Amino acid sequence: EIIAAVKGFFAESAAPRPLAGRRAVVTSGPTVEAIDPVRFIANRSSGKQGHAVAAALAALGAEVTLVSGPVTIPDPAGVRMVRVESARDMLAACQAALPADILVCAAAVADWRVEAADQKLKKQPGGAPPALVLSENPDILATLSQAGARRPRLVVGFAAETETVVEHAVAKRRRKGCDWILANDVSPATGTFGGDDNTLHLITDHGVEDWPRLTKQAAAERLAARIAEALAAASPKEPA
Amino acid sequence: EIIAAVKGFFAESAAPRPLAGRRAVVTSGPTVEAIDPVRFIANRSSGKQGHAVAAALAALGAEVTLVSGPVTIPDPAGVRMVRVESARDMLAACQAALPADILVCAAAVADWRVEAADQKLKKQPGGAPPALVLSENPDILATLSQAGARRPRLVVGFAAETETVVEHAVAKRRRKGCDWILANDVSPATGTFGGDDNTLHLITDHGVEDWPRLTKQAAAERLAARIAEALAAASPKEPA
Repeated sequence: EIIAAVKGFFAESAAPRPLAGRRAVVTSGPTVEAIDPVRFIANRSSGKQGHAVAAALAALGAEVTLVSGPVTIPDPAGVRMVRVESARDMLAACQAALPADILVCAAAVADWRVEAADQKLKKQPGGAPPALVLSENPDILATLSQAGARRPRLVVGFAAETETVVEHAVAKRRRKGCDWILANDVSPATGTFGGDDNTLHLITDHGVEDWPRLTKQAAAERLAARIAEALAAASPKEPA
Repeated sequence: EIIAAVKGFFAESAAPRPLAGRRAVVTSGPTVEAIDPVRFIANRSSGKQGHAVAAALAALGAEVTLVSGPVTIPDPAGVRMVRVESARDMLAACQAALPADILVCAAAVADWRVEAADQKLKKQPGGAPPALVLSENPDILATLSQAGARRPRLVVGFAAETETVVEHAVAKRRRKGCDWILANDVSPATGTFGGDDNTLHLITDHGVEDWPRLTKQAAAERLAARIAEALAAASPKEPA
């Protein structure tokens, strides 16, 4: 008992690892949907916020799988990387990474994909532009929020909005069935997409909490600390 | 006369600069067409070939303006960079960079743009995907190939094809009104888009010349040397 207490004391004073023994899956970056062999639809997500969340969870001791679309930023240290392109690939990679205690969906997932052509679409002289036939992609957040044995205990989504940010996000939380939503304004004027800062609103079943403008790293650390608190309250760990 | 001859001798032995005094405009990379504030259509062009052509022309003494869409590779040394996003921006930047002796259109320009929305397109629960209304972009190569006082003396286009590569490119040269076309196969299996090598076919009014598989840098140097020869033959410079 004394040895265990001493071990616990040193572990905590060196670096608190409240998420040790927890598994987390984080999605990050854009998804890329092929139109044909050379063209694609993507979005302006840099992956900075999702990668920072993965790093912050790992820093608190979680075993993190980071499922990321194509980005140009470095891989965070200490996480398992899974690289994907399309929304369907991302969903499959997340499902393969379960079970987990924590799921944070920070990727900017394409709502729609294109019925992709096998050959490059050719411009026909004098012809009309081709019709891009869109199909709805699977909803990764909603799919993984569904009740069931493999549902992560805490599912956190992001809502990237350009208008009535909080209202949209509150509705989104209810619709998706996730536990928390972090809502942010990604209007071009905010510089959020690709930038280093983020102004977030945390929406839980207790209401809306407005966070100050933070660096994406500080926002990730705040989120990771909140996740650790929530999991500890829900299922206190055995005393060391 | 002796001094001039000596100067000429040393200039040539140090580094041949057959394009000294010539102006070149090179386009490179993808263009990016906004769908809404966060989504866009782009393509898999890395900019490696266009950037290498700009560098190779500059190495032969040309004064080069490189008009590039968003890429992640470094700027070549010794060229003037103009960064653009859309095809319309790229055309305007090229026109602003004229007059020039040489134009090499290596960018992968979007044939179509989307009638972009001011606000992020929202997925409507149970609703159909939005229709993406496409409009034809200006044809940069054809526009700048049109006869006129500002037409560059030598206009070179690239044709990225995934099937019947040379046939498509021969037709494209005629349709666009450019002088030369470099045709390449960008099928995913070739690894050309994003890769370091390229297998090109040079199509001129003398016919088709099949080049061996080369690094993009070697292909660029070969093209720059051919351009220098062609311009020297068309208008020999004053002897030094």
